[in-house]
Amino acid sequence: MIDLPYLKDVCQATPSKIVMLVVDGLGGAPHRETGKSELESARLPNLDALARRSAGGLTTPVTPGITPGSGPGHMALFGYDPVKYLMGRGVLEALGIGIDLGKGDVAARGNLCTVDGDGLLVDRRAGRIPTAESAPLVEMLDRIEVPNVSLSVYPVQDYRFVLVLRGDDLRDDVGETDPQRNGAAPVDAEALSPPAERTAEAVNAFVAAARDVLGGRDRANMVLLRGFSALPRLPDFGGSYSLNPAAVAAYPMYRGLAELVGMKVLRTGQTFDDELDTLEAHFADHDFFFLHYKPADAAGEDGDFDAKVARLEELDARIPRLLELQPDALVVAGDHATPAIMAGHSWHPVPLLISSGLTAGDGIDGFSERTCAAGSIGRIPATSVMMLALAHAGKLAKFGP
Amino acid sequence: MIDLPYLKDVCQATPSKIVMLVVDGLGGAPHRETGKSELESARLPNLDALARRSAGGLTTPVTPGITPGSGPGHMALFGYDPVKYLMGRGVLEALGIGIDLGKGDVAARGNLCTVDGDGLLVDRRAGRIPTAESAPLVEMLDRIEVPNVSLSVYPVQDYRFVLVLRGDDLRDDVGETDPQRNGAAPVDAEALSPPAERTAEAVNAFVAAARDVLGGRDRANMVLLRGFSALPRLPDFGGSYSLNPAAVAAYPMYRGLAELVGMKVLRTGQTFDDELDTLEAHFADHDFFFLHYKPADAAGEDGDFDAKVARLEELDARIPRLLELQPDALVVAGDHATPAIMAGHSWHPVPLLISSGLTAGDGIDGFSERTCAAGSIGRIPATSVMMLALAHAGKLAKFGP
Repeated sequence: MIDLPYLKDVCQATPSKIVMLVVDGLGGAPHRETGKSELESARLPNLDALARRSAGGLTTPVTPGITPGSGPGHMALFGYDPVKYLMGRGVLEALGIGIDLGKGDVAARGNLCTVDGDGLLVDRRAGRIPTAESAPLVEMLDRIEVPNVSLSVYPVQDYRFVLVLRGDDLRDDVGETDPQRNGAAPVDAEALSPPAERTAEAVNAFVAAARDVLGGRDRANMVLLRGFSALPRLPDFGGSYSLNPAAVAAYPMYRGLAELVGMKVLRTGQTFDDELDTLEAHFADHDFFFLHYKPADAAGEDGDFDAKVARLEELDARIPRLLELQPDALVVAGDHATPAIMAGHSWHPVPLLISSGLTAGDGIDGFSERTCAAGSIGRIPATSVMMLALAHAGKLAKFGP
Repeated sequence: MIDLPYLKDVCQATPSKIVMLVVDGLGGAPHRETGKSELESARLPNLDALARRSAGGLTTPVTPGITPGSGPGHMALFGYDPVKYLMGRGVLEALGIGIDLGKGDVAARGNLCTVDGDGLLVDRRAGRIPTAESAPLVEMLDRIEVPNVSLSVYPVQDYRFVLVLRGDDLRDDVGETDPQRNGAAPVDAEALSPPAERTAEAVNAFVAAARDVLGGRDRANMVLLRGFSALPRLPDFGGSYSLNPAAVAAYPMYRGLAELVGMKVLRTGQTFDDELDTLEAHFADHDFFFLHYKPADAAGEDGDFDAKVARLEELDARIPRLLELQPDALVVAGDHATPAIMAGHSWHPVPLLISSGLTAGDGIDGFSERTCAAGSIGRIPATSVMMLALAHAGKLAKFGP
């Protein structure tokens, strides 16, 4: 809880090290046939053993019933009130690929998508086309010009890109063009306040030009834009907690998020093994590591129960490498649940483990939603996780005389 | 939580249906001899089976240790901060019997009571005399006149009535005349602020006249007044949650409460079977139903442990009828606990079940205070129940990118 009025009074720099492993979409829900969740279905000998010697609990990312996007989910784990510090996906995505956003610039997240002859959406993600196929298309989009506003289009990965608008008096209160379902046509970008009309016009001019440029193709023949946003102001993560923090994340958005809160974003590769290499190489240099594991969420979003189980098992196999580093406090948390049966994020509380020299386990047997519900941490707001991590690492002084 | 700043952004109207069964006074406390609560003592095959396939938890109606009245208890379940939106029982009771209260009118809840020859209370509820006996007495009270204020007295049920004061500059900060125990004399209505003095005078003039009018009788020979209150302003339940809500409640106060938050109050009979008839008849017309079950609370208030057990078993026998409607989300909640051993409301956390296609059960075995404590929902503020119900019914969009 980075806004705690007495945070400065209690946070103290120490040599102890914290690793916060964020398993994206960690939580799940029971399979309709087996009655077991993904975590319960997976063979997780290392996480189960870790759970037996950890303090366990469940985190509520925002408030009960609220399903967070990845932005609010991570911000909460970092201790930022996810409502107060809500930020747009465009900004996150832009920062994640290293775009130097300036004050007043507006960024949006773009998808290449596929429409049929009537202009109706057939695939909002254009078959998840590979970067090799999308890169030349994004280059064509980048050459589009509209009056009075400078446009840049940057490739992200696969079907995704970022649009950045630069110019005077731009606004980010512009509605998305994604109708959020196939069978509908992309919608015009709408100004959500009168001053945003000029920005919306520029966006719509861009979309019209994109339709012309891509129109001859069978797939990836149109664009969708969401998350129009400008840079927010955030308290510095390291300064607030008296930490020297680093982020190890393969996926652009999470790198962007970490940079936004002021973490040192370490250069790493595309896989979790690459991330572990990076963590090991820099373990001496920082006292806090945000380590991100993405694949479980992607499988859950695809509604693929077995794949999510497999991704969790792959994570489990790498836990021993993490333990060899002997962090003083190891947090295993999730930004939100992504139950395969829902093929999307959900509001369910998310399992949490904290291992340190200050706990010998809660008596919980294994790592799952149900076991963690019985842990000593109880159900807490995700914004409290950082404080517990700091406490387990001996980084919090006594409050009050 | 009807005041969530982002509620409008996430609530979406869908065809899915929610039934919120509020079992008044649901929670209890262990019998001193058996060590089992009312729920644990009752034979509840249907609720137990439902619990095994539901998400379970405990709700805190207001804050730990606080015993709510039925008003705050229900307001919290509907998502209204029960402190911010505290309203008087007089208003609730008046609305419950269809009185058209105007702005500035002050309503109070009245009991016919029995006093002895010294004017000391013998029975605060006058032996719960039937409506047939009380109706002519209420008519006599309604003919009482006092200077400068227009008085109306309306029958409610059994020993209960409503007093409405209409006039200029009336105030509702007037203390109750009920000393809350037998053996004491009714107290004068006290002005809780100087501007309320005129209202208190009118109330005391009414009480004095009532003593004269009823004085010749053996029982129901005096009145007690509580809950002086005027109409509050409340956010609209349906509009806030994007629901088309209906209330099915036999008991006047709960009908009044539902009307006050903007629910459609369906005409129904006096029994829970009547309520189920009404629910079935209107099930196609609404997407949210508040269904109220009163008898368990009444038995608890009477301190009759066995009667409360019996009322819970009677409810259990009707659960299959409810399940046949196949609501997308079924919530079983209580507005507060009413342990028979306390013969009144209590602060104890209240068992909660939510059944939907998105949960396969928490592994909790049966429906009780102790089993629900181990459920995945954990202990939550009652104000969060609506959000969970909406989430389980697929009525909440993702928050943030």
